[in-house]
Amino acid sequence: MEFQGQHILSIDQFDREAVENILRVAEQMAPYTSRQKRSTLLEGATLASLFFEPSTRTRISFASAFNLLGGKVMETVGIDISSLSKGESLFDTAQVVSGYADAVVMRHSEAFSVAEFAAGSRVPVLNGGDGANEHPTQALLDSYTIFSELKRLGKPASKLRVALVGDLKNGRTVHSLSRLLSLFPKMEFTFVAPNALTMPEKIMAICENAGHRISITQDFSSGLQNQDVVYMTRVQEERFDTQEEANLYRGKYRLTQPIYDQYCNPDTIIMHPLPRDSRPEANELSDDLNRNPNLAIFRQSDNGVKIRMALFALVLGVENKLAQYEAPVTWYSNKS
Amino acid sequence: MEFQGQHILSIDQFDREAVENILRVAEQMAPYTSRQKRSTLLEGATLASLFFEPSTRTRISFASAFNLLGGKVMETVGIDISSLSKGESLFDTAQVVSGYADAVVMRHSEAFSVAEFAAGSRVPVLNGGDGANEHPTQALLDSYTIFSELKRLGKPASKLRVALVGDLKNGRTVHSLSRLLSLFPKMEFTFVAPNALTMPEKIMAICENAGHRISITQDFSSGLQNQDVVYMTRVQEERFDTQEEANLYRGKYRLTQPIYDQYCNPDTIIMHPLPRDSRPEANELSDDLNRNPNLAIFRQSDNGVKIRMALFALVLGVENKLAQYEAPVTWYSNKS
Amino acid sequence: MEFQGQHILSIDQFDREAVENILRVAEQMAPYTSRQKRSTLLEGATLASLFFEPSTRTRISFASAFNLLGGKVMETVGIDISSLSKGESLFDTAQVVSGYADAVVMRHSEAFSVAEFAAGSRVPVLNGGDGANEHPTQALLDSYTIFSELKRLGKPASKLRVALVGDLKNGRTVHSLSRLLSLFPKMEFTFVAPNALTMPEKIMAICENAGHRISITQDFSSGLQNQDVVYMTRVQEERFDTQEEANLYRGKYRLTQPIYDQYCNPDTIIMHPLPRDSRPEANELSDDLNRNPNLAIFRQSDNGVKIRMALFALVLGVENKLAQYEAPVTWYSNKS
Repeated sequence: MEFQGQHILSIDQFDREAVENILRVAEQMAPYTSRQKRSTLLEGATLASLFFEPSTRTRISFASAFNLLGGKVMETVGIDISSLSKGESLFDTAQVVSGYADAVVMRHSEAFSVAEFAAGSRVPVLNGGDGANEHPTQALLDSYTIFSELKRLGKPASKLRVALVGDLKNGRTVHSLSRLLSLFPKMEFTFVAPNALTMPEKIMAICENAGHRISITQDFSSGLQNQDVVYMTRVQEERFDTQEEANLYRGKYRLTQPIYDQYCNPDTIIMHPLPRDSRPEANELSDDLNRNPNLAIFRQSDNGVKIRMALFALVLGVENKLAQYEAPVTWYSNKS
Repeated sequence: MEFQGQHILSIDQFDREAVENILRVAEQMAPYTSRQKRSTLLEGATLASLFFEPSTRTRISFASAFNLLGGKVMETVGIDISSLSKGESLFDTAQVVSGYADAVVMRHSEAFSVAEFAAGSRVPVLNGGDGANEHPTQALLDSYTIFSELKRLGKPASKLRVALVGDLKNGRTVHSLSRLLSLFPKMEFTFVAPNALTMPEKIMAICENAGHRISITQDFSSGLQNQDVVYMTRVQEERFDTQEEANLYRGKYRLTQPIYDQYCNPDTIIMHPLPRDSRPEANELSDDLNRNPNLAIFRQSDNGVKIRMALFALVLGVENKLAQYEAPVTWYSNKS
Repeated sequence: MEFQGQHILSIDQFDREAVENILRVAEQMAPYTSRQKRSTLLEGATLASLFFEPSTRTRISFASAFNLLGGKVMETVGIDISSLSKGESLFDTAQVVSGYADAVVMRHSEAFSVAEFAAGSRVPVLNGGDGANEHPTQALLDSYTIFSELKRLGKPASKLRVALVGDLKNGRTVHSLSRLLSLFPKMEFTFVAPNALTMPEKIMAICENAGHRISITQDFSSGLQNQDVVYMTRVQEERFDTQEEANLYRGKYRLTQPIYDQYCNPDTIIMHPLPRDSRPEANELSDDLNRNPNLAIFRQSDNGVKIRMALFALVLGVENKLAQYEAPVTWYSNKS
């Protein structure tokens, strides 16, 4: 696909080539995020960041990405879209805001609201999450993380075995990731979830129709075995019909270092969309894993900046100009 | 008037020459807003944006203007003026904030609060709206839009015929615009409003004393005829004394494409201060006008950025240095 | 101490040499804050500003400082730390946010929360106030102000006589300032407070153990006499056990110009941490002092920017590169 001038609304826009293009550009962002050098590519450009629904990490990640390319960010958070309460349509808001900026990132609690906004925008719009619908940059950063972690471990990216664990019924993240990974060849998906929270048929059909192997289990320990990646998500007790049913699963999907040692391969990558819930009643990913070198959750979060930089570069048509707009980093950083 | 170092609090500060100066500088901002090139003029300068009352579009428009000149913006929105709740005077707040910034834009729900703040400020303050009192940049951008639309249509700027429609009693916007246009020669104002919401005598007197023709009508269709500009505003039902009276006007001041075709000249410019209320019970400016080339409402909003850039340039004394501080735009934009 | 890569959490980190180092670097920031020239030193760097508790002046002061060094700021204010409400630990938040930025400033209502955050951060964290615990940049800017005011008056910095007035029991500011000044030689502290709100023994012991003279009084007028500096703070009536006790002190600690004329030396410097409460029932520092040349409260606030610039420069290891990264100021300013 041609990215320049386009909106990024859904992973459905991408074929495998498009995803590989995004990941390749994201990889080129590493010297900037690690502060080996800095980019002046988008100096003078402005991003309008519209978070109708708060999401601090996603908002700052997009802002950081645009800043790292040299641009400036104008933010709006929460209920502060005062004109909407006066009956303004999203089309009008988009017409107005796109007159102020070179790109827009938007998050909203309603499904498809970002696409509705994009229809009125005169500049590229990136979907930062539209309710139950999509959060395409999350699926992209997850994919990027999987491939870069495999590379780090010297493992091939083919015949990838991925276990997705937790609430697979309601998890927007795991749906998008499964669909995105399905674009790549020879996957083995293991869906580990309580019966009441299993992966929707529709998503599993997409995986199977793409030629991948899938298996389903309720059993956490067997699901963890022989995986390249274990992708944890939270199981919320309120999702079950009865407390009795919830009690059956309470504490069953908690990954700790001892459990990792017992069931996982020693090089199994641990991922999580974050935030992880560190309260005792949740604790789906124990703090004792923090020293596990294969706990990739913070590298995953770091990679989000590279993916968002890549998307900004692509939709603004500057992905091939990076080398022309570089400058040295003057300050101390221990990131590189 | 001399702009450098001055506050912009009210259109009363301006004579015709001053307005023309602002509009002329605003016109020079077009290459930057259309991204043909970018300005580095205010690199290193900071704007403190204090929105005690939220107004997303006005806030982002000012931020965009300062960013497009190369400066950085520090924002404060809503009730987050924590020191004021501890009894700090606006004078003290101004002394402190003006130590942090090179210019301030402020919006507040109380009339004359911005002037009170400006009295304590050591840097220029721009009024972004002070309650029922003034919103001078709106009147300026409206004037700019009228003259630039006339130029687009190849029409002379003299003998201008303007219909102002809607709630003319309570509309800060239409008061300021009438007063500002009164500085120019040979205007014909038509004030179209329900009897209960007619233009205040005081404003009409200003127009007449400046030598302009004014006419008043309740009748929407006759008010639309033979106008260069129709400036629509919303009629809020709660403004009437009784529901019976409100019902008399319900739906009477709604401009649609069929009504435009029936009553307006084919080159009549349609304006609106935005946001327009697209809910069925309001809908004062129908969406079916979106394809009408004379619907100027989004160009009007775009022009707000140029006006605000012009004011920043003028109060910071850099309006003649634009050409010295330019750089190419590196990224794709379809704005130019 | 070595500053590069360090967190700034508490004044306990500093010995006298460290404080003098900070003050010396802060002094070098004056040409930038007075807009004689501008710095491009941190162009490309980003600051994550996390104000879990709102504090507009502190937040803008830090932002201004980072902007004046050329960097960009990403802000989060108030309850908008959405992931924390989902059970995320401060450690995780720090890991994530430090991946987005080159430095972090954080304010939080809970004591020691900033240190907890810093333990998870991969970039330097500056404490912008952590509840009842510390606000180290306030103590530093107060110290800077004292020494620069003495220099302005041509007075020696030794044998400094400082009166601290008001609620000395609960005032985080006066505790930190007393401790910081105790690092310097030959101080004379006068603690002026109602009996119920006197300086804690612990702080007085620190002053005395460092070899300084201290005296305690309830009497405002005698406390004001023969001082180099009078540092006023607010007495809140709700701090007393009974209204009868509060009434005893109502209005007793209000500095006005007539009282200054009557009791203070003519060159006594007046300071206040701000905001001063200008409501009639508080009014601890009367507006009639605004024309007193020794009212240093707004210079004090201005100095906060220099101190924060100095700390950013020090923790990012660029304090010796200032002269290499300078550019002219293009716009009008009456600050210099």
